[in-house]
Order: sequence, then structure tokens, then C-alpha cells
Amino acid sequence: MAEPVRGPGRSTALGVARNPARLVAFSDAVFAISITLLVLEIRPPEDTRHLTHSLAALWPSYLAYALTFLLIGQVWANHHLMFDHLRGVDWVVLLLNTLLLMSIAFLPFAASVLAAAFREGHGQRTAVVFYGIALGLAASLFNAIWGYASRGHRLLDTTVDSAGARAISRRFRLAPLWIAAGTLLGALLPVLGVAMITALIPFYWLPIRGELARERRRRGGRE
Amino acid sequence: MAEPVRGPGRSTALGVARNPARLVAFSDAVFAISITLLVLEIRPPEDTRHLTHSLAALWPSYLAYALTFLLIGQVWANHHLMFDHLRGVDWVVLLLNTLLLMSIAFLPFAASVLAAAFREGHGQRTAVVFYGIALGLAASLFNAIWGYASRGHRLLDTTVDSAGARAISRRFRLAPLWIAAGTLLGALLPVLGVAMITALIPFYWLPIRGELARERRRRGGRE
Amino acid sequence: MAEPVRGPGRSTALGVARNPARLVAFSDAVFAISITLLVLEIRPPEDTRHLTHSLAALWPSYLAYALTFLLIGQVWANHHLMFDHLRGVDWVVLLLNTLLLMSIAFLPFAASVLAAAFREGHGQRTAVVFYGIALGLAASLFNAIWGYASRGHRLLDTTVDSAGARAISRRFRLAPLWIAAGTLLGALLPVLGVAMITALIPFYWLPIRGELARERRRRGGRE
Amino acid sequence: MAEPVRGPGRSTALGVARNPARLVAFSDAVFAISITLLVLEIRPPEDTRHLTHSLAALWPSYLAYALTFLLIGQVWANHHLMFDHLRGVDWVVLLLNTLLLMSIAFLPFAASVLAAAFREGHGQRTAVVFYGIALGLAASLFNAIWGYASRGHRLLDTTVDSAGARAISRRFRLAPLWIAAGTLLGALLPVLGVAMITALIPFYWLPIRGELARERRRRGGRE
Repeated sequence: MAEPVRGPGRSTALGVARNPARLVAFSDAVFAISITLLVLEIRPPEDTRHLTHSLAALWPSYLAYALTFLLIGQVWANHHLMFDHLRGVDWVVLLLNTLLLMSIAFLPFAASVLAAAFREGHGQRTAVVFYGIALGLAASLFNAIWGYASRGHRLLDTTVDSAGARAISRRFRLAPLWIAAGTLLGALLPVLGVAMITALIPFYWLPIRGELARERRRRGGRE
Repeated sequence: MAEPVRGPGRSTALGVARNPARLVAFSDAVFAISITLLVLEIRPPEDTRHLTHSLAALWPSYLAYALTFLLIGQVWANHHLMFDHLRGVDWVVLLLNTLLLMSIAFLPFAASVLAAAFREGHGQRTAVVFYGIALGLAASLFNAIWGYASRGHRLLDTTVDSAGARAISRRFRLAPLWIAAGTLLGALLPVLGVAMITALIPFYWLPIRGELARERRRRGGRE
Repeated sequence: MAEPVRGPGRSTALGVARNPARLVAFSDAVFAISITLLVLEIRPPEDTRHLTHSLAALWPSYLAYALTFLLIGQVWANHHLMFDHLRGVDWVVLLLNTLLLMSIAFLPFAASVLAAAFREGHGQRTAVVFYGIALGLAASLFNAIWGYASRGHRLLDTTVDSAGARAISRRFRLAPLWIAAGTLLGALLPVLGVAMITALIPFYWLPIRGELARERRRRGGRE
Repeated sequence: MAEPVRGPGRSTALGVARNPARLVAFSDAVFAISITLLVLEIRPPEDTRHLTHSLAALWPSYLAYALTFLLIGQVWANHHLMFDHLRGVDWVVLLLNTLLLMSIAFLPFAASVLAAAFREGHGQRTAVVFYGIALGLAASLFNAIWGYASRGHRLLDTTVDSAGARAISRRFRLAPLWIAAGTLLGALLPVLGVAMITALIPFYWLPIRGELARERRRRGGRE
């Protein structure tokens, strides 16, 4: 949350383009808090007489915890990747980013609904669709930020060239489609829908080919 | 929360004027935590038998969540704008800022009361007035900080001239009046009161004209 | 939470004296989270039929919230003041600081107990004593850090001379005694005990005379 | 959470080796939030009629709070020690660190289960084993990060030589074995199992001999 660079930034046609460090720090805090609040949605058993059984019965909560933790962790990592390539932010980015954080901070609730439905054995379809919509909203807002910032290299820094920006776009664009497909599948077969959304996680751990501008790569990518 | 600049700052008549970076970092943390705790006020349905219906019945919680998230987000953005223009803080600013954070951190509770009243169909007037008072207190304390710091350019930096300070004052001063009007309206017609408070959000996304000192603007606003 | 200075610090007899920035950033985070979690201890009324009455009946929760918020806020401010004058930290400071944070993070629970007792009209004496012990423990650990670090100027920086260190010691030392007196008074007359603890807040907002080393003051206290 | 160093880092065979400051800041936030959320697992007594008795009956919650607070505090301190010696991070470290944070953020739940079992007088064996598994998982992931980063000096900085790396490895490697032994013991004698896990805390406060590279020590360890 520290703010090493202070003072207003460059003027642009759309207002004052402020230093992104501040926005990134605030976003990081919201990611970190959302990810850590997830555990509060797992209620400890009140009766400890059959504790092994009670703890085992909470398996949907553990899965929803792990799934959502890893998904938010990935949004965090990709959020850094995105803002590393922006030379500034304007109020459109600020607005879209606030909406993105709003959808991320909502995920612990969606995870809790998902776990409850699988634990109770009722409402799984609804729960998967609800979870998918919340996650898909986050992914769409993420893409909206990148689409706005990279259109015509509007807010991009020299750390990324057009080929790199396109490589990143291709990577980011896949997530909302993938989540939409998983959500539709989950409306019919809830377990398969969750499995499809889960498959996003290993996919997004792969590094993006061609992320850095060619010139920077030749120099070893150092600043 | 990091603190790149260490050590006590300038002495002033009112005590030690410390570097504002530290205060801003702490405030950012409280804003980020408050905004993320909002989701804990939405209780997931315990019975998942009619989950679609139960989730739909929570619409007042979703609205209270979105409204309060966006309002706190705006206080955060304007808090940065304000402290960007301060060259230091004294204990009066420290005290007022602590009271401001106290009122912001209270908003998740007020949002929860607002949602409960609209969900239950009782007590909406009381809930809107309660919410309006909490929010209006925050807006008033925000103005008190700016009023104190900008009177006679007391704590202002060279990044803002008198015209800029007046432009910012006009912008900030509107919020408590607007909220007071929304609260009064809500005491009679709760839905309209909430609508009026909601209207603050699009208004405050517009950039402030004349925020930067003229000289800085001519140089392109760079530091 | 950022960490501008990296790498291990100076070796000392007691181990590696690491840069205090890191410790301060972590402590700040715990202060900010504790202060913001306080609101979760105020439970919104479930029945909104007599909402005005229900909200009014929560007055002990509001007071416990405000009291604890301001007390933690003051510990935060004084924690910064203290670490501003340390040139490094060793494992003793690290251990004492961890125990301090443990007692601070416990205060939301003590505040909740205090509010419950005054709301229910039973157990006020016990609740005030419980709250006083938790707060007094925090104040004692705070003094233990300063006592250890300032003995023989062990970890003090050049920003403070012996007279300044003594002025700070006098200020800090008062708090545990004051809280102990308030706790004892509260065991007999709970309301007066709370009033006495509350009186700490205005007292600690006054700046400390003679905090900066004389030399620094002559130069205007600038770094 | 601030990010003083921006822009992508060095390219490596495994992708972009980013600056560890960012990862450390995010991890710090998760440690700080987890440690502070612990208190929410202690439920204040609803009936304050026999408050002294009710507060005394919560002793397992206080112990679970203190134990888990100090354990997470130690993971935090050692996490810094570890990342102080890394010159960069790759996606393997990022993945392992995310899994580490996931296990740390889960500990408040495990602490709550542990406290409930000792409070209710049922299920202590299960609870100790459950707690031990969660903690042991965290310790194993911690070792996996260090093992990966230090193998062949892969990601180590010049602040540590081979002897220092081995000294750190020996220290870190003990924790999972110790926790495994405590867990097994707890499956038979729950109180002794908790005692054994508790004994980790004083042990890990001792500084590591030979942590800094010899050369740096000769220069006084200064950067």
C-alpha cells in the first residue's frame, strides 16, 4: 500500500493520467484480502462428537476454497503482468478496475454458495451458474481494461510492442469464453462445469510467449 | 503499507509535520479492507433447496454491496487526490483522518442494515437515514481535512495554486450537501433517497477542472 | 507492505539486525486489519420491524467500536514514532513486536465482550477488567520494546538524543499505569473505569515535547 | 503492497523472472490478514450472566489463537529471510508460493477446529491431526520453495554462499519432520502433540548461524 511516487501525473485528454503504482497497490490489497477471507466461509463444525465425519463432510468447502484461491491468485498475477505494461492510467481504467475489484471481492460469497449446494445436495446447477457468472464478469472486466489500454497502444509502455500486446490479448481473451462454456456446461452437468472452470488454472500457469518487446529481450529484458 | 521515506519530518508550530506517505498508506489499507469486508455482510442461503429463489431474494444485499463498494472506492480515489496536494500532515490532519477512517470502516455495518430493511420490507426509512448519516459523516470529515489543510494554503504543496484549491473545494463541498438531501428525501421516500445517494457515483467520476496549478499544466504536469 | 530496502542488514551480537521498514510495514497491516475488523463485532439486527429501537439498543457496540478504533489508532501512530527512531531491529524486538501485535489483534474480541456486557446489563465489571487486561498487555509490550531498544541507546538512531529518548519514555510509560488504574476502577465502577480508559485518547493526541534531537531541531528537523 | 520496482524482470529459460519484491509484498499481506483473522474464530459469549465463567471456558480458543499467531508470525519472518536471498522468482516459485499462502490462510479454520474440540471435550485427536496436517503442508511447501530455489544456487543471490544455503536448509528442513512427529504423537496423546508443535516456536526464534556469506560478514554485512 506504500506509495513511493507521489504527486499528480501527466495531463491527458481524458483527465490526469496518474501513476499506476498506486492503483496496483490498492488492487493488490483487495486481491490479498479477498483471497484470505475465503476461509471465513468454511464454518467449523459446532458438534465435535463425530469430528472426523464432520470434517470430511466439508469437502465441498475445501474444494471451493482451493479453486477460488487459485483463480484469484491467477487474476492477481495477470493483473500485475497487465499493469507492468501500462505507462499510466486514466479515469476509464480507474472505473473499470474498480468494477473488476468489486467482482473479485464478491467471489468469496459465490464460493460459499457453490460449497453449500454441493454439501446439501440441492441447487448445484444454480450454484455453478451463479459462480460462473461472477467469475465471467471478473474476466470480462479484466479484458475490458486491457482492450481499452492497448487499443492503438493508447496507454501501453515501451516494454511491449504490437506483437507482444497481441500475444497478451490472445491469452486474456480466452478466459471469459472458457468460463462461459464452463457455466453453460454446469447448467446441465454441474460437476463437469466445475471441472471445466478448474481446468483454467493449469492453463494459465504457462508463461505467455512473446510478452516482452523484441528489443528488450535482446538486451536481456533488464530495466 | 510500506514506508519508503523514514524519519521524522519538519517541525511546525503544531508539532512534527510528518511525511504524508505513511498516513496515505495506512488509510489505503483501511479503505481496501472495508471495501472487501462488505461481502461478509451477504449471508449465503442455508437452505439450498430453492437456491435460485433464495439468491434472487438477496437483491438488496447485492445493491447495498455495489453501492457501498463504489462509494468507498470514490472516497479512496479522492483521498489520494487530496493528499497528493499536501506537503505534510500535522496532528489535526492525523486526528481528522482517523475519524474519517472510523466512519468509513463503519459503512459495511450501515450497508448491512440497509440491505436487511429492504429484504425484510420493514424499517427502510430508518435504514436509509442511518446509512445517510454514516456516509454524510464521512463526507463531512473529508471536507474538514481539506478545509483545514487548504485554509491560507496551510499545508498545500506547490502542485496546486489557489484557483486549483478552490476548484477542489467546490467539488468536495458538494458531497455532504448531496448526501444530506438524499437522507432527508429517504426519510420520506426511501427508494428515492437511495437513488439520490447512488447518483453521487457517476457525478464523482468526472475529472476536476483546474485541479493542477497553471504553471504545472504548462509544463505538462510532470514532476 | 512494500519493501523498498532488501537484503539482510548489519550483523550484531544478537543476530542479524534487519531493516525496520519491513517490520513496520507488517505491523501497519495488522493495525489496519484489526481496526477494520472491529465493525464485524457489531451484529446487524435480524428483525427490522422496530429498526430505530434495535439500532439505538446497539449503543454499547458503537461506543466500544469508537473507543477501540481510536486506541488502536493511537498505538499505530506511536508505533511509527517509536520505529522512526530505531536504526535497526534484532530478534528481541521482533519477538516483542509479534507479542504486541498478538495483543492488538485480540482487542476486537475484548471490545465485543465489553459491548455485550453493557448491552445485556450483566457482567460489566468482568468485561471492563477483561478489556483493561488486554489493553494493558498491549501497552506493557509497547513499553518493553522501547525500554529494550533505548537502554544505553542500544538501537536508537541519531534522530533522537538522550533527552528526547527520556521524553518519549515518560510519555509511553504512563499508558500501562493509566490503564491499570482504569481497570481497577472498572472492577468496582465499570462505567468510570471505561471513562478513565477513554481519557487516554485525548491525552495521547498531544505532541511529545523534546522528541527530536536538539541538533536536528536547529536545522529545522529536515532529513 | 506498494511496488517500488516496476516493469518485467529478466528473461530465463522458465519464463520471465520477476522481481521478488512484488511477491513478498503480496505474501506479507496474506500473512498479516490470516494472523489478524484468527481472532474472528473466538466467538464472544452470548449470555453475559456468568461472564467470568464463560470467558474462562474459552481457554482453548485463547491457546489456539496464541499458538497459531506465533506460528504464522514465524513463517512470515522466515519467508522474508528466504526471499532476502533470492535474486528473482520464476513461475515455479510463484506456484509453490501460492500453494503456501493457501495453506497458511487455511490455518484460522484449523485453529478453530482445534479450539472447538478441546472446549467440547470430544474429537481432540482428530483435531490435532487435522491441525498438524495443515501446518505440515505449509512447512513442506515452504521447504519446496527453498529446495527449488537453492538447488545448484539456481535463484540465490550473492548474499548467501553454499555454506549459508546449507545452514538455512538444515534449519528449514527440521520443521516438517517436527510437525509430523507432533501430529503422530497427537493422534495418540492430543495434549502432548500440541505441546510438541508449540515447542517449534521457541526453537525457531534462535538466529541461524552462518546465514550470511562470509565475504559480506567481513564487510559487516552492509549492502
